[in-house]
Amino acid sequence: MPTVVASAPGKVTLFGEHAVVYGYPAIVAAISKRLHTKVTPRRDHVIQVVAKDIKVPGIVLTYFSEEEVVVETDYKSSMSALSYVRTAVDVVREYLGINRGAAIEITSEMPVGAGLGTSAAVSVTTIAGYAAAHGYTLKKEEIRDLAWEVEKRVQGRASPMDTTIATFGGVLKIVPSEGEPKIEALEAPEDLPFVIGYVEREAGTKEMVAKVARLRERFPDVVEGVMRLIGQVTEEAEKALKNRDLVTLGTLMNINNGLLDALGVSNKRLSELVYAARWAGALGSKLTGAGGGGAVIALSPGREEQVEVAMKLHGALTLRADVGVVGLVVRKVKE
Amino acid sequence: MPTVVASAPGKVTLFGEHAVVYGYPAIVAAISKRLHTKVTPRRDHVIQVVAKDIKVPGIVLTYFSEEEVVVETDYKSSMSALSYVRTAVDVVREYLGINRGAAIEITSEMPVGAGLGTSAAVSVTTIAGYAAAHGYTLKKEEIRDLAWEVEKRVQGRASPMDTTIATFGGVLKIVPSEGEPKIEALEAPEDLPFVIGYVEREAGTKEMVAKVARLRERFPDVVEGVMRLIGQVTEEAEKALKNRDLVTLGTLMNINNGLLDALGVSNKRLSELVYAARWAGALGSKLTGAGGGGAVIALSPGREEQVEVAMKLHGALTLRADVGVVGLVVRKVKE
Repeated sequence: MPTVVASAPGKVTLFGEHAVVYGYPAIVAAISKRLHTKVTPRRDHVIQVVAKDIKVPGIVLTYFSEEEVVVETDYKSSMSALSYVRTAVDVVREYLGINRGAAIEITSEMPVGAGLGTSAAVSVTTIAGYAAAHGYTLKKEEIRDLAWEVEKRVQGRASPMDTTIATFGGVLKIVPSEGEPKIEALEAPEDLPFVIGYVEREAGTKEMVAKVARLRERFPDVVEGVMRLIGQVTEEAEKALKNRDLVTLGTLMNINNGLLDALGVSNKRLSELVYAARWAGALGSKLTGAGGGGAVIALSPGREEQVEVAMKLHGALTLRADVGVVGLVVRKVKE
Repeated sequence: MPTVVASAPGKVTLFGEHAVVYGYPAIVAAISKRLHTKVTPRRDHVIQVVAKDIKVPGIVLTYFSEEEVVVETDYKSSMSALSYVRTAVDVVREYLGINRGAAIEITSEMPVGAGLGTSAAVSVTTIAGYAAAHGYTLKKEEIRDLAWEVEKRVQGRASPMDTTIATFGGVLKIVPSEGEPKIEALEAPEDLPFVIGYVEREAGTKEMVAKVARLRERFPDVVEGVMRLIGQVTEEAEKALKNRDLVTLGTLMNINNGLLDALGVSNKRLSELVYAARWAGALGSKLTGAGGGGAVIALSPGREEQVEVAMKLHGALTLRADVGVVGLVVRKVKE
């Protein structure tokens, strides 16, 4: 049995997070930072997971089998990532009807838990890598669906968008519908210069999705109205992407951010980064992902350095990324 | 002819600014900080205006007649206030059909140009004071309408809400309609503990209203949708006020603020104050007034000191105010 490395890109949600959970479209883009999962088959049934170099300071070592769980970590966000690995292994084993062991080693070029889709990339690469390492070839659609199942098990409710972009890459529009979500590759400029700033999260995706659901119970018409508007902004953004109209795209990012703020998913630090980026010359900026901390994206043609400095001054870790890159790649590193 | 002092309260918009310009309801509350205008009749036709103690550092002295304008000021916001005085004098003279002179002395317990309705208070008190000083008794409705005319002349488009609250006081719901706006006194708790923080404005009311109009031209459906949602939030807030449900009121302030953010009327400093107040324990916080700087209000029962400190740390001048106080008062100080 071969050792394989599966890699998948991180993503940013350009438009439509949260609203996509309620049936409205979203636009997501794969970014040029990737997560790599190396899977080596074992002769026994033990699953060993090593997650390292995940760009939050420190190293996480975790081992578990069906009989025992041993954890050495002091980072909640890493623990969260590991729950995806564990669930992904469960899901792919059930699907393949096998119970074989594997050594799984995960490295990431981006921070875990910052809203950059690392949990989806973990799920997708773990499933693809585990299957390939044991001689099974799964279709991308199968991998995506299994990874989505992982997200649903871990988070409760989950949008299909993170697992889709991790699998297929590019810039995608997701339109939820009964059963299978409709997914469409979008025309988009190739060199959208984004600066991404990230800060510690105060709350996880699950919590933020639940928070919005609670707000919707209290104010159903208002929250449904905000969701519908986010959907409209996303449709406008699709046109702006096609027309390569970056100024309009920036304005729409700002509107989308205000609507997310109305849903209560921003916080003090995210809001500071959003406004620092605009102050430094970004055409538009918004939080990306579930919120409650995590990442802010800024569209900053010609002002990347200034925007990066402004974000750093407000305590963010920053990175720059191209969008629209390739999705899941599985390669054998040893037969 | 008597010397009179007319005084009127400042106001905060609790809900619905900007949307009220497009026909949706708003809730405004008079605050326990007032503007006082002393009018002494003159035998000639000269209007002399002294505006002092307006709680921005420095003193403004301005004199003008029909023949000459002499200005000593280095503060744009004060100049703006003076254009209301001047227009108010024009409007009330036209209405009464007289051309007599007066010495007008204005003092304010609140900062000018911070979105606290000082321009309306200037218009209302100048009109009421000028009329009373020359022996005319105007009804409150007449004064309100003349002051609204002043606002329209100075700003172009204007909502009737600032001049109405300055005239009538209390907590009012304004529902714009064809011709006369519908105004309704609301039941509200008497001791809503607000902290108000204010920062310099980057743009005036006129500019901000025009900015929203431009955004509406670019994205008519989205902006109309945001206005409609602000209207819904305002209706919910009316219920919360009646029920004395401060927690709900706070949440609705937060939603309203996000929707204003989506309209592009917040900025870096306002956003910092809004989040600083929440971080320090406010139940809710939002910008109030036209935005682009100016004031932020925070509903902070039991956390007034902490919220005030947090806002000061972010560079704001702060004040605390009760809401729902009396409106225009005119009294003779000398026969």
